Amino acid sequence: MNALRRFSLNQKTIDRWTLRQAVDGCAAAGVEAIGLWREPVHDHGLRAAAKLVRDAGLRVSSLCRGGFFTGEWAGALDDNRRAIDEAAELGAACLVLVVGGLPPGSRDLPSARSRVADAIAELAPYAAARSVRLALEPMHPIYAADRGVLSTLADALDLAERFPAQTVGVAVDSFHTWWDPALAAQVVRAGDRIASVQLADWITPLPPDALLARGMLGDGHIDLRGFVALTDSAGYDGDLEVEIFNADVWAADGDTVLATVRDRLLRHVLG
Amino acid sequence: MNALRRFSLNQKTIDRWTLRQAVDGCAAAGVEAIGLWREPVHDHGLRAAAKLVRDAGLRVSSLCRGGFFTGEWAGALDDNRRAIDEAAELGAACLVLVVGGLPPGSRDLPSARSRVADAIAELAPYAAARSVRLALEPMHPIYAADRGVLSTLADALDLAERFPAQTVGVAVDSFHTWWDPALAAQVVRAGDRIASVQLADWITPLPPDALLARGMLGDGHIDLRGFVALTDSAGYDGDLEVEIFNADVWAADGDTVLATVRDRLLRHVLG
Repeated sequence: MNALRRFSLNQKTIDRWTLRQAVDGCAAAGVEAIGLWREPVHDHGLRAAAKLVRDAGLRVSSLCRGGFFTGEWAGALDDNRRAIDEAAELGAACLVLVVGGLPPGSRDLPSARSRVADAIAELAPYAAARSVRLALEPMHPIYAADRGVLSTLADALDLAERFPAQTVGVAVDSFHTWWDPALAAQVVRAGDRIASVQLADWITPLPPDALLARGMLGDGHIDLRGFVALTDSAGYDGDLEVEIFNADVWAADGDTVLATVRDRLLRHVLG
Repeated sequence: MNALRRFSLNQKTIDRWTLRQAVDGCAAAGVEAIGLWREPVHDHGLRAAAKLVRDAGLRVSSLCRGGFFTGEWAGALDDNRRAIDEAAELGAACLVLVVGGLPPGSRDLPSARSRVADAIAELAPYAAARSVRLALEPMHPIYAADRGVLSTLADALDLAERFPAQTVGVAVDSFHTWWDPALAAQVVRAGDRIASVQLADWITPLPPDALLARGMLGDGHIDLRGFVALTDSAGYDGDLEVEIFNADVWAADGDTVLATVRDRLLRHVLG
């Protein structure tokens, strides 16, 4: 069990579970931390969700997700302020930000990246006042057009470093960053900016739906053991959150998926 | 016509055409340059292919492709020497190298990248002796596991710069590199190392087969006009090769595809 003490289940890995089922599933399996998503939290009710998780003794390793700054501006900022409030209520270690892709019809990446920087400048004081840590998530370049124009950890750090480390950190996800030849150097640079470490594998052939392309730990090409050792060496000692978007994983029984994740963590990552 | 004088048709864009059909199609449409692939050249016969292209007055903007250095070593080097011989016979401006992905079962990216460097060191003298220019192609990170472990232009240049610029250059493809926040700086750095410029668009949703995911010019998210202006500003004045791997494009009539490419070049890139 001890090797798994840092294991956090991102609830999206078992998409069929309600919040209550996820909390019960974690408790039954001895999982000590959970990564929450806003939609199931809303379905349960925010205050009730906070109480449910607290009463279960679970750490909330992250709330997913804010961001999407590159579309309508005022609405995005309002929604992100609500997300910050929710992260505060839930006691989440961070609010993960998926920054958004190119606006419809735009081919201007630098402008979209600049818009993201403006949004963080707007939101950082609001987050700081509520002791919520924002976590900029560099996304795999496969999503640069439609999900996240921050494509590298270097990019995310260039932006994060304009703000205090306790207010703006980074989320480092193996699936998004494993290919990056600069990864090792940038993880060291990140140091105490690392607000979240997420794990999923890169599998080939890539599944047909790019949004559900993440692989079960050990099924793919990423040196996940080395990835965790790297973030450890940068001083990160927080939760290791397993987040897998994959149609086959989503179709499987939740308890079975959770058992598989634990087994794979022990065999391929932590053991 | 004049705006199209740098247009080269990579023959893979019209996959159904034989070499002769591609040469005839280019001649009929007034296209002055062609990017060749080894397989259709072999089908036609190397010497006959060289004569066919020469007699048609076509420049050969590239031969695709060598590389795949990360599997069996001796066979890969032998095959690449043959590819260099073919590029020399065809008078190709460069031999494009797709360096290969992770070896089967390996999760060691640094070791695979090191293997690529060793291969280039082996091949560079052989290429130089035949006045063939090798073009290292950084591949989109979506292909890091299974096609090319060189993921960024910076990576490719770090390797290319160990050798004379006339022997080892880089191929800069819009589809592979457009997302890179360091692209502008690295294209300037590349300067006369740019041996090939290739064009395809990035479309969303990404087609189900990642290997056929490239979009027709203008259908996607890339600022292709800005991309060409960037390579121009670095001093590149060679051919602009359109290379589109896409099931719908491949299913269409060849002459129609060629007409569409010319139209899109004028509307979205050069005009």
